Amino acid sequence: MSDHINHLSAGVIRTDLPMSDGRTIRYYDQGHITRSAVDTREKEERPGLGELRLDPLTNEWTAIAAHRQTRVFLPPKELCPLCATKPGLISEIPDKAYQVVVFDNKSPSFADPGESFSLPKWAGLKTKNGQSAGKCEVICFTDNHETSFHQLDEDQIRIVMEAWRDRTRELSKEKHIAHIAPFENRGEEVGVTLSHPHGQIYAYPFLPPRTEKMYRAAKKFYKETGKILLEEIIKREVKDGVRIVAQNDHWIAYVPFAARYPFEIHVAPKKSVADLAALSDAQADSYPAIAKEVLQRLDGVFGIEMAYIAAWHQAPVRKGRDVMRLHWQITSIRRAPGKLKYLAGSESAFGAFIMDLKPEQSAQQLRDVRLPKNR
Amino acid sequence: MSDHINHLSAGVIRTDLPMSDGRTIRYYDQGHITRSAVDTREKEERPGLGELRLDPLTNEWTAIAAHRQTRVFLPPKELCPLCATKPGLISEIPDKAYQVVVFDNKSPSFADPGESFSLPKWAGLKTKNGQSAGKCEVICFTDNHETSFHQLDEDQIRIVMEAWRDRTRELSKEKHIAHIAPFENRGEEVGVTLSHPHGQIYAYPFLPPRTEKMYRAAKKFYKETGKILLEEIIKREVKDGVRIVAQNDHWIAYVPFAARYPFEIHVAPKKSVADLAALSDAQADSYPAIAKEVLQRLDGVFGIEMAYIAAWHQAPVRKGRDVMRLHWQITSIRRAPGKLKYLAGSESAFGAFIMDLKPEQSAQQLRDVRLPKNR
Repeated sequence: MSDHINHLSAGVIRTDLPMSDGRTIRYYDQGHITRSAVDTREKEERPGLGELRLDPLTNEWTAIAAHRQTRVFLPPKELCPLCATKPGLISEIPDKAYQVVVFDNKSPSFADPGESFSLPKWAGLKTKNGQSAGKCEVICFTDNHETSFHQLDEDQIRIVMEAWRDRTRELSKEKHIAHIAPFENRGEEVGVTLSHPHGQIYAYPFLPPRTEKMYRAAKKFYKETGKILLEEIIKREVKDGVRIVAQNDHWIAYVPFAARYPFEIHVAPKKSVADLAALSDAQADSYPAIAKEVLQRLDGVFGIEMAYIAAWHQAPVRKGRDVMRLHWQITSIRRAPGKLKYLAGSESAFGAFIMDLKPEQSAQQLRDVRLPKNR
Repeated sequence: MSDHINHLSAGVIRTDLPMSDGRTIRYYDQGHITRSAVDTREKEERPGLGELRLDPLTNEWTAIAAHRQTRVFLPPKELCPLCATKPGLISEIPDKAYQVVVFDNKSPSFADPGESFSLPKWAGLKTKNGQSAGKCEVICFTDNHETSFHQLDEDQIRIVMEAWRDRTRELSKEKHIAHIAPFENRGEEVGVTLSHPHGQIYAYPFLPPRTEKMYRAAKKFYKETGKILLEEIIKREVKDGVRIVAQNDHWIAYVPFAARYPFEIHVAPKKSVADLAALSDAQADSYPAIAKEVLQRLDGVFGIEMAYIAAWHQAPVRKGRDVMRLHWQITSIRRAPGKLKYLAGSESAFGAFIMDLKPEQSAQQLRDVRLPKNR
């Protein structure tokens, strides 16, 4: 068994251990903890690589991952595969306690293609199918099943941030990976199948369509103005003021000018950087405070747990690094207690978003939330 | 009171009547029926025009329609605003019975801007806000509250088709309208707020992002091959055979090669046309049979009512008419009884679709459905 130890920022140590089916689990710990727990499960066969098919109507890739249909759906707490292993439960995490772990997804949409991957060239309807090359990882924010991301203390979120930075740095080295996308889905309303606080890291072999669009917009803006789009967006938000939700020394959070969801918050470092790996330690250190505040404000609007998708948008691995900048987009489809915004005909079939709420109004609602005293 | 009568195909007559708040209702009838029922409701003020804001991160317009937040949500049958007016209920339809009606949406996302509309030019972050110019109409497929589109008889669906053609023809004349999008949302799972069988017709002042993408793909394909993309797609489907779900003399239905949803069916005329208005009468006459079959197969897969979005994609009003072709896309997020496909991080934040089911497999499941004898 080979284990591997890395010293990262903020006193975080990463220990890599093999899982029984050949996957890797990475423990991220603050303090000197020796990790050596062995995955005692039977060796299982890993699912094969899925297919990429080109949708000729839009020239977008669809990933076909037929093996995912059977994945676990909201198991009871006693059977949670993201809890630490304990008597009666052998979970995905062999050790009996952990701080933060990242392991390879058991049913990945994208996986290692081996050596010789390249994406098929566009040839109209004759475009060959590709392989779903890439990587899908699961990040467990804590071993406490009963909490949520924004209830973690700041030190704990700092370890999560260090794990995101480390994964971005490491996955960027893989030749077949074009874009790295850490995100968290929260709430059954957005299809979460495991309630344990966790996120995912998708590493795509192509620029995802929305990232491609953001790249084109940033490039066009740079070409016409010589300026970095996200920096100018933040300047406008600061000037307008009315959509700012929170800020601290290093970060600013705002409802974007043309928000597409009833509650949408973008959180960006004040000094712009290309990706998570490029954040300074000072920036990384002050992220936990704004992350907690923003998500607590979101839950505070209606006094209920809000379903959300929180996604890190960063510069792609190999292009656009001079024009695209890191920010964290939180979108919630909750427009009122008992009412969701659905992506129906206009949004889903035609891609045109209709917003029922003015961004200035939702920003006001978010600012008006009284934060809990014991944060 | 001015009423207005138009003779359309298939013996359908359209009668326009004013509603009390200045909107128009259009009755589409087969046979000689005189429509003159008066809308007796108090005159109500119409909501103002919403705002279009440019999302600089993607250069897409978001429509802000703050007045829609209060719209009616799943009223009981006795209060259904889409039923015909009856003792105790004054609905949106003044007459006491109807075949098919189309009326202007009470809470439209897009509305008539008056004379002088033009979309603001792109100027980066300085792009001015636009007006939500356009049109939103509601189409009631029947006055029977308790049925669904595919349970209607073929004559009735033929009237619906005639109404779609007529609306496309008429809305295409409006200078501020760039694209016409008839669609039906079915099922609470996709956010339907009224269970009465009905659809919507959105007329946008811009090309919706997905339409724009389809336009670019069709143009690129034509430029490089000299061929019409949808015609070649259908040739491939015919050649492959395995994804075909149904066909008749004039229409073909298939699960597309790179389907994005667990159940997705595209239905296209065998002889391609640009839009609904350009369909021949023979094509229009044979649409009801394939529409019924395809939707019955969809409901038959799990023996439950499937939530779906069914959208007509057609050539935009003023561009791409030489390369874009009419087809009807039905997408369902139901992947199994009790299981929905959610658009979470990968799809929603990054636009990259993951499919859990091979298109060939869902096509087989759809073909295997035994259709009801009494259709």
